[in-house]
Amino acid sequence: VDPGAVDADRLRLSPEESHHLLRVHRAVPGTPFEATDGQGAFFECVLESVERRSAVGRIVARHVDRGELKIPIQLLVGLPEWRAVEQIVEHAVPLGVSALDFAVCERSGREAVGPQRLARLARIAKAALKQSRRSRLPALASSGMLRSGVQALGPGHRFLADPEGEAFTEDLEQSFQDPIQIAVGPPGGFDEGERRLLLDSGFTPISLGPSRLTTETACLAAISLLRNAL
Amino acid sequence: VDPGAVDADRLRLSPEESHHLLRVHRAVPGTPFEATDGQGAFFECVLESVERRSAVGRIVARHVDRGELKIPIQLLVGLPEWRAVEQIVEHAVPLGVSALDFAVCERSGREAVGPQRLARLARIAKAALKQSRRSRLPALASSGMLRSGVQALGPGHRFLADPEGEAFTEDLEQSFQDPIQIAVGPPGGFDEGERRLLLDSGFTPISLGPSRLTTETACLAAISLLRNAL
Repeated sequence: VDPGAVDADRLRLSPEESHHLLRVHRAVPGTPFEATDGQGAFFECVLESVERRSAVGRIVARHVDRGELKIPIQLLVGLPEWRAVEQIVEHAVPLGVSALDFAVCERSGREAVGPQRLARLARIAKAALKQSRRSRLPALASSGMLRSGVQALGPGHRFLADPEGEAFTEDLEQSFQDPIQIAVGPPGGFDEGERRLLLDSGFTPISLGPSRLTTETACLAAISLLRNAL
Repeated sequence: VDPGAVDADRLRLSPEESHHLLRVHRAVPGTPFEATDGQGAFFECVLESVERRSAVGRIVARHVDRGELKIPIQLLVGLPEWRAVEQIVEHAVPLGVSALDFAVCERSGREAVGPQRLARLARIAKAALKQSRRSRLPALASSGMLRSGVQALGPGHRFLADPEGEAFTEDLEQSFQDPIQIAVGPPGGFDEGERRLLLDSGFTPISLGPSRLTTETACLAAISLLRNAL
């Protein structure tokens, strides 16, 4: 629901979401449903009426940050092929990432994700958000180079998926306050200059195990570990 | 490489693998390559000759269980739709699972995976094994009901992905000796009878976090956690 369409005790869904609720889920007045504004507010509602194809719900309960992790997880990933990009969004959003940057690396072999594809990723993220019952839409970006992606990050606890790192253990798990930031290389890995940049920028290398992982599997494994540490 | 095609210091690749090595990777005599028999043996080789379209490699080093986890991880998952099944195999094999059973559950709403599709999954598993540089092919199955899947398991440390469980912590991490066995529900979850069966069979419920995960995301998150505990 658009945050502007929520008042003290009622909210109005967009025509698209109304269609979904009324036609796909066949809601009728009195049917309970849930809504989120994607900015941390989560509403339990009861369908009250339909006005000009827009469903109007009465809000019976409000929750803040329902389904969200206590600390945000941000992912900086070396841009892989498109199918892998989609898979990362599809799984990383339910796992709770708050920001995803597909940064062009030396070994990416492709240009940054353009606006049209970013819009498609935003739709995948929105569907995953609803499905997973989270309440904050993640930020999606595609930096033209790794350095810009690193510079765009604020303070954080930084981890680099790296075969030469140590396994992630509770020793590495300080009391996280700032966001957790995870860097994962593109297919073929970060090159030496990029790896050096990340180490110099405070990323701690962690190993994800004895086998070689694709970019997309490594992203999901790293998020799963850090998410569990929260 | 077929285990029968390996002798003391040489191995012979199948026509299909030879084609891949010679045509796709353009190997010539003297080119180094790696091979595994999928049963734990991993060979570093040098291409020696090509006889009747079969590449013959001289073995320069042998490794046992290269890329394998110290303790096997077995996954028992409530059968989801086909696309999710493929994604689970694609990610779970690099993450190290040694056995995967897609068991038909009350809420699966479909029949067990047939022989033709199991063969397709075996091809995906083989490709993932090579890509991840593991050395043991996982066993793939599709039990007709959850109970048969549970009965087919040997002794193990059993975990059930369950929103009502506690987070997985190092407290739960005994010194694992037997295989680790993870159960993940189908879309919609295990029903009450199935959940009871799993709890009665010694599965410890562990929560994977505050958001709702699809079957496929939950599989990957659970494997990632347990894998890291090894």
